[in-house]
Amino acid sequence: MTKIKVGILGATGAVGQRFVQLLADHPWFEVAALGASDRSAGVPYKQRRWVLQPDMPEAERDMTLRLGEPQNFGDCQVIFSATPNDVAERVEAEFAAAGFYVFTNAGPHRMDADVPLMITDVNPEHAALIRVQQAQRGWSGFIVANSNCTSTNLTSALKPLHDAFGLEKVFVVSMQAVSGAGYPGVSTMDISDNVIPYIGNEEPKLEEEPLKMLGRFTGDGIDFADFAISAHCNRVPTLDGHLECVSVALRNQATPEQAAEVLRSYRSVPQELGLPSAPDPCIVVRDEPDRPQVRLDRMAGHGMATVVGRIRRDPILDLKFVLLGHTTVRGAAGGSVLNAELLLQQGYIF
Amino acid sequence: MTKIKVGILGATGAVGQRFVQLLADHPWFEVAALGASDRSAGVPYKQRRWVLQPDMPEAERDMTLRLGEPQNFGDCQVIFSATPNDVAERVEAEFAAAGFYVFTNAGPHRMDADVPLMITDVNPEHAALIRVQQAQRGWSGFIVANSNCTSTNLTSALKPLHDAFGLEKVFVVSMQAVSGAGYPGVSTMDISDNVIPYIGNEEPKLEEEPLKMLGRFTGDGIDFADFAISAHCNRVPTLDGHLECVSVALRNQATPEQAAEVLRSYRSVPQELGLPSAPDPCIVVRDEPDRPQVRLDRMAGHGMATVVGRIRRDPILDLKFVLLGHTTVRGAAGGSVLNAELLLQQGYIF
Amino acid sequence: MTKIKVGILGATGAVGQRFVQLLADHPWFEVAALGASDRSAGVPYKQRRWVLQPDMPEAERDMTLRLGEPQNFGDCQVIFSATPNDVAERVEAEFAAAGFYVFTNAGPHRMDADVPLMITDVNPEHAALIRVQQAQRGWSGFIVANSNCTSTNLTSALKPLHDAFGLEKVFVVSMQAVSGAGYPGVSTMDISDNVIPYIGNEEPKLEEEPLKMLGRFTGDGIDFADFAISAHCNRVPTLDGHLECVSVALRNQATPEQAAEVLRSYRSVPQELGLPSAPDPCIVVRDEPDRPQVRLDRMAGHGMATVVGRIRRDPILDLKFVLLGHTTVRGAAGGSVLNAELLLQQGYIF
Amino acid sequence: MTKIKVGILGATGAVGQRFVQLLADHPWFEVAALGASDRSAGVPYKQRRWVLQPDMPEAERDMTLRLGEPQNFGDCQVIFSATPNDVAERVEAEFAAAGFYVFTNAGPHRMDADVPLMITDVNPEHAALIRVQQAQRGWSGFIVANSNCTSTNLTSALKPLHDAFGLEKVFVVSMQAVSGAGYPGVSTMDISDNVIPYIGNEEPKLEEEPLKMLGRFTGDGIDFADFAISAHCNRVPTLDGHLECVSVALRNQATPEQAAEVLRSYRSVPQELGLPSAPDPCIVVRDEPDRPQVRLDRMAGHGMATVVGRIRRDPILDLKFVLLGHTTVRGAAGGSVLNAELLLQQGYIF
Repeated sequence: MTKIKVGILGATGAVGQRFVQLLADHPWFEVAALGASDRSAGVPYKQRRWVLQPDMPEAERDMTLRLGEPQNFGDCQVIFSATPNDVAERVEAEFAAAGFYVFTNAGPHRMDADVPLMITDVNPEHAALIRVQQAQRGWSGFIVANSNCTSTNLTSALKPLHDAFGLEKVFVVSMQAVSGAGYPGVSTMDISDNVIPYIGNEEPKLEEEPLKMLGRFTGDGIDFADFAISAHCNRVPTLDGHLECVSVALRNQATPEQAAEVLRSYRSVPQELGLPSAPDPCIVVRDEPDRPQVRLDRMAGHGMATVVGRIRRDPILDLKFVLLGHTTVRGAAGGSVLNAELLLQQGYIF
Repeated sequence: MTKIKVGILGATGAVGQRFVQLLADHPWFEVAALGASDRSAGVPYKQRRWVLQPDMPEAERDMTLRLGEPQNFGDCQVIFSATPNDVAERVEAEFAAAGFYVFTNAGPHRMDADVPLMITDVNPEHAALIRVQQAQRGWSGFIVANSNCTSTNLTSALKPLHDAFGLEKVFVVSMQAVSGAGYPGVSTMDISDNVIPYIGNEEPKLEEEPLKMLGRFTGDGIDFADFAISAHCNRVPTLDGHLECVSVALRNQATPEQAAEVLRSYRSVPQELGLPSAPDPCIVVRDEPDRPQVRLDRMAGHGMATVVGRIRRDPILDLKFVLLGHTTVRGAAGGSVLNAELLLQQGYIF
Repeated sequence: MTKIKVGILGATGAVGQRFVQLLADHPWFEVAALGASDRSAGVPYKQRRWVLQPDMPEAERDMTLRLGEPQNFGDCQVIFSATPNDVAERVEAEFAAAGFYVFTNAGPHRMDADVPLMITDVNPEHAALIRVQQAQRGWSGFIVANSNCTSTNLTSALKPLHDAFGLEKVFVVSMQAVSGAGYPGVSTMDISDNVIPYIGNEEPKLEEEPLKMLGRFTGDGIDFADFAISAHCNRVPTLDGHLECVSVALRNQATPEQAAEVLRSYRSVPQELGLPSAPDPCIVVRDEPDRPQVRLDRMAGHGMATVVGRIRRDPILDLKFVLLGHTTVRGAAGGSVLNAELLLQQGYIF
Repeated sequence: MTKIKVGILGATGAVGQRFVQLLADHPWFEVAALGASDRSAGVPYKQRRWVLQPDMPEAERDMTLRLGEPQNFGDCQVIFSATPNDVAERVEAEFAAAGFYVFTNAGPHRMDADVPLMITDVNPEHAALIRVQQAQRGWSGFIVANSNCTSTNLTSALKPLHDAFGLEKVFVVSMQAVSGAGYPGVSTMDISDNVIPYIGNEEPKLEEEPLKMLGRFTGDGIDFADFAISAHCNRVPTLDGHLECVSVALRNQATPEQAAEVLRSYRSVPQELGLPSAPDPCIVVRDEPDRPQVRLDRMAGHGMATVVGRIRRDPILDLKFVLLGHTTVRGAAGGSVLNAELLLQQGYIF
C-alpha cells in the first residue's frame, strides 16, 4: 500500500514536533512536507530547536521548512495543523478550500457549527458533519478539529458514564502540565514551587467542548448534550499530563463499582477497527487508592489512553473520581492522527 | 510583664520547629522546654536537623531535649504540641490532666465532643467548651486543638460567607504542599514532576472539621453546621502553601462582588484585640485574574492570612473561587500560637 | 538630608524590578524615574508584570514608564541600568556623556579599559579609574559596572585568599539558578528535571572578569591579576542563588583552617563606612559539612553576603570549597546599589 | 538454551526493582527468587511499593519474598545484590562461600584487593581476579562488584582517553540525581529549589574507584592507575542521571577533536561479543554546544551508554568536557547485569 503523503503546519512548535514524532514510521501516512511561518521557512528542519525525546527523526532532519500556504503543499493530501491560533482560522480554511483534508489541533474552528470536533473513541459518528461542511462552504477538502487537551481527557471518561447513566452535572478541577502551553511556554520563574490557578480562556473551553462532543448528530448539525459543567483550571509544575478531579451527578444512580465496570469495558470504533494509534483499552481503570499519578500513568497506552481511578461516592453529587491523559499525545497531536486514521478507514480520505 | 513559660512537644519535627521559630521573641510567651521522644531526649536541640530558614534561633540551640512527659515540664504552664498522632492522644491527655494548658496541632482530639477545635478568626466563642471539658474530665488543664491545615484555610474563607449568605453545599479540591506531610515526609522520587491525587485520611477531615468549627456552641457542646462538603485532596510539588479551588451553593444569593466585599471586610476578635500573631486583615482578597498563587502569596500576613481570589459565578452552584493559606504557619503552629494568645486574653490561661 | 534622585533603566525586567525593590525606602536614594523600551513607555508601571515578592512597592505603581533616553531623565542624577545588552552600550554612553552617573548591571562596558568593574568589598580603589574615563571620553558623568552574577560571587570569595596567599590557579564549576537568565528566561520545558551544562558566553566572563577586579589600579588603568581560571557553567533547576565548586592552587601554602579564618575575618571599606546595603560580615563561613545550600543560604546578609563552606584540602591543587551568592541581589541590582553608595561617600556623586 | 536462574537480594529497594525490571524477558537469565529483609520476607512482591515505570512485571508480582540467606536460594546460580551496605559485606560473603556467583551493586567489597570492580567496557580483563579471590578465600562462588554510579560514568569516559593519551590529573564536579540515594531517599523538603553540595562518603569513592578500574591486573592483584582525581559531589533536583563536569591533564597532548574521535570510536569486549545489555556505541559523543542534558540524554543506549559532550580546551589543564550516565541503569543494576553477561560468555558462570 502506498502511504498517503501528509504535511504538518506549525511543525516547529511543540505540538508540531509531536506530530512529526508520532508520524515517523506510521503505517499509513508519510510526512512529505513541514510548514512554518516566514521566520523559519527556507531553513532545514534540523536547525530548529527540537524539544522532545528521543532526538528528531532522521527522515525529517534535512527537510526544508515550507511557508504554510496551500500552493507549497501540492504533494500532500492530508494536513495536520499545529498552526498558532492567531492565524489558524484563515490558513486552515484556505487549505480546506484548496481540497486538503485538514486535521487541526488549533482552537478557532472547534466550535464552528459545521466542523466536527472529534475524539475517535467518543463521537466517531460526528464525521458525517463533514458532508454538511463541504456542502455549506463549497469545499472539496474539509476541516476536522480535535478538542482542547483538558477537554479530551475529560470527555473520554465522561462518554461511557453518559451513555450508561446520563450525566446531569459535572464539576471538574484540572491540574495541567506546562507542555499544554507550548514551547517555550511557561517560565520557570512563574511555575517553580507554585500553582497558578488560572489559564487564559481554558475554563470556558472545558465547560463547552465536551457538550458538543457528547452531543447528537442530527443530519445537519450537532445537538449539544444537555448537562452543565463547572470548571476550575490550574497550572501545576509538571511536564506532561493533565490530572482532573471530577464529581458528577447522574440521571440514573450508579455505584462506584458499576461506574468502574462501565469505564473498564468501554470499547469504541477505533478498537474495533484496530486503528494503528488506537489504545486498547481506551480507558484504563486503576484500583489503587493513589492512582492515576501524573508521572507514573501519563504514558498509558503509549500516551493515547485515559486513566481513571479513585471512583467513589460523592457526598453532594453522586460519584467522584480522578482522571489523567497525556497533554500533547492524546491531548493534541495523537488525537488528530487517530482522527485521520478513522476517516481514512471510513472513506473520507481517498 | 513576666512572660509565660511554654513547652513544645515534638520539637524536633517540622511543625515543632515552626513553633520554636514563631515563639522566638514572642511578647507574651517564652520557650522554656523542648520535648522529644526517647530517641532524641537528652541531647542539645542544635544536634537535631533544622529544616526551616533562617537558622535555628540562638536561644534554643543549647536547650537539652526533654522526654515528653508531664513531670519533665514542671517549669511550664502552656504546652504546644506537635506530637506525632500515634502518641498524641495519650500524651496530651496526661498533660491536660496534670494541669497544663495544651494547644495541639495533632489530630486525635480534634473531633472529641468536648475539645474546642478553634480558629481564632472563626470561632473564638468555642473557647467556652473548655469549661465543659474540664468539668467532664476532671482536669485543671485543658486541650484546645487547631484543625488540619487544609481545613483551616477553607474554614477561614467560608466563615464570612456562611455568616452573610448561608452555605448549602461546598465543593473543594485541594493542591497541597509537601510540608503538610512533615519532615522528611514526601520523597522526591514520589512527587517530582507529579501530582498524587490522594492523601491518606485527608478528605474525611476536610469534609468534617469545618462543620464543627462553623457550628454553634450550645452551652454544653457544638451543634455542627448544617451543610455538605465534598473534598478531593491532591499532593502537588510545592514546598509550602495549600491552594484550594472551591465552589459553593448559598442559601441566599450573592454576586461575586458582594462575596468579595464580605470577605474583604471581615474582622474578628483577634483583630479587635490586636493579638500579636493576628493578621489584619485576616482575609486578603486579590483582584487579579491569576491570584492567589502559591509561591507569591503564601506569606501574606506573615503566613497567617488566608488569601482569596478569582471569585466568580459557578455554572452549577452559585460562586466559585480560589483560596490559599500557609501550610505550617497559619495551618499548623501559627494557628496554635494564636489560639493561646486569644485564650490568654480571655482569661483561660493564668 | 535630601535624597538623591535616581532613574532605573530597564525597569520592567527582572533586574530592573530588583532595583525598584532594593531602592524602596533607601536612606540616600529616591526613585524618581523608571525607564523602558518604546514597547512599554507611557504606561503606568503597575500594568507591567511584577515577578518578585512581595508585591510592587506602592510608590512606583503609578509612575509612568519613560522612554530610556537622557532627555527624559532630567530630574535624576544617578542612573541604575538594567538595560538589555543589545542596546546598553549605546544608551549608557549617551547617559554618561549627558552627565549622569551610571551604575550598570549590563555587560557591554564591563571590560572597557577605562570602566571600573567593581565589587565594593573587593576593589573599591578601582573607583579612581572614573577620572581616567572622564578625561579620555570627555564625559562629566561616568559608567561604573558590576560584574556578572557568577563572577561577583566567585571574586568576593577569592579576594581574601588572593590577598593572604596569592592565587595561582582557580578551577570553578557553577550551578546557576534560572533567575540569572532574566524573565521569562528559562522555559520550564527546558530545565525541569534537568541540568543544562551550557550558558551562552558565561564561561569566558567567569574566566576573565575576576582577573580585572582582582587587578591593580596603576593610575591610568588596571593591571589584571596574574592567575588562570578554568570555568564550567551549568544551569540547574533552582530559582535564585548561584552555587560554585572551587579548587585553588595558592602561591603560599595554607591549611583549610587558615583559609577559613582569612575569609571569616575579612572586612572591607563598605563595612568600615557602614554603607546602608553593605553586609557585615561580607563573607559568611559555614562549618557544617553540607552548607552552603542554595535555598537555605541565599538570603544571608539580606542576599548581599557571599557564603563559603566545605573548605578542605584538594588532592591536586591546594584547597577546595563551595560558595554561594544571590543571583539578582548581590549578583546584580544590589551590587550596583552598593557601588553607588560607596561612590557617594567617596565624593564621586555630588 | 535453558535460562540461568538468578536471585535478587534487596529486591524491594530502588536498585533491586531496577534489577527486576532489567531482567524481565532477559534472554539468558530468569528471575527465580527475590530476597528481602525479615520485615518483608514472606509477603508477595506485589505488596511492596513499586517505584519505577512501567508497572511491576507480571512474572514477579506473585513471587513470595524470601529472607536473604543462602539456604533460601538453592534454586539459583547467580545472585544480583542490591543489599543495603550495612549487611552486604556479611551476606554477600556467605553467598559466595556457598557457591553462588554474586554480582553486587553494594559498596563494602568494592575495594577488597581480590574483588574485581568491573565495568565491562572498561576492564573486562579484571575478571581474572576471580581466580585469585576463590583461591585466597576458598570459595567456589565469587563476588564481582560494580562501582558507585558516579564512578561508573566517569571511568567509562576516562578509559579511552587514558588508553590514548595517558591521564595525569582529573578534576570532576558531579551533579547527581536523587535516585542515587535510593527510595525514599532524598526528602522534597531538602532538595526542592536547592543544591546540596555534599553527599556522604561520595567524594572519596569518586577519587579512588576509577583508579582501581583503570589499573592493571598483575596476575595476583590490581596495580592502581597512577594519576590523581579531585572530586566535588553535589545533589541536584533531578530524578535520574548524573552529570559530571570534568577537566583533565594528559601525558600526551590531544586536541578536542582527537579526544572526541577516540571517545566516539571506542569499542570494547561487550560490543564485540554482542552482549544482550551492551550499548553500542558504549560512548555517545554529542556535538551540540549544550549537550548532554540530564533529561534529554539519560536514556541513551537504553540507559546503558555514557554520553560525552562539550569537549574543549581547558585554560589550566588540557581538556574539559561534560559527561552523563543513568544513575540506576548503567550506574547500578544494569552494570551488574552486563558484568554477569560477560562472565557467562567468558566461562566464569556455568
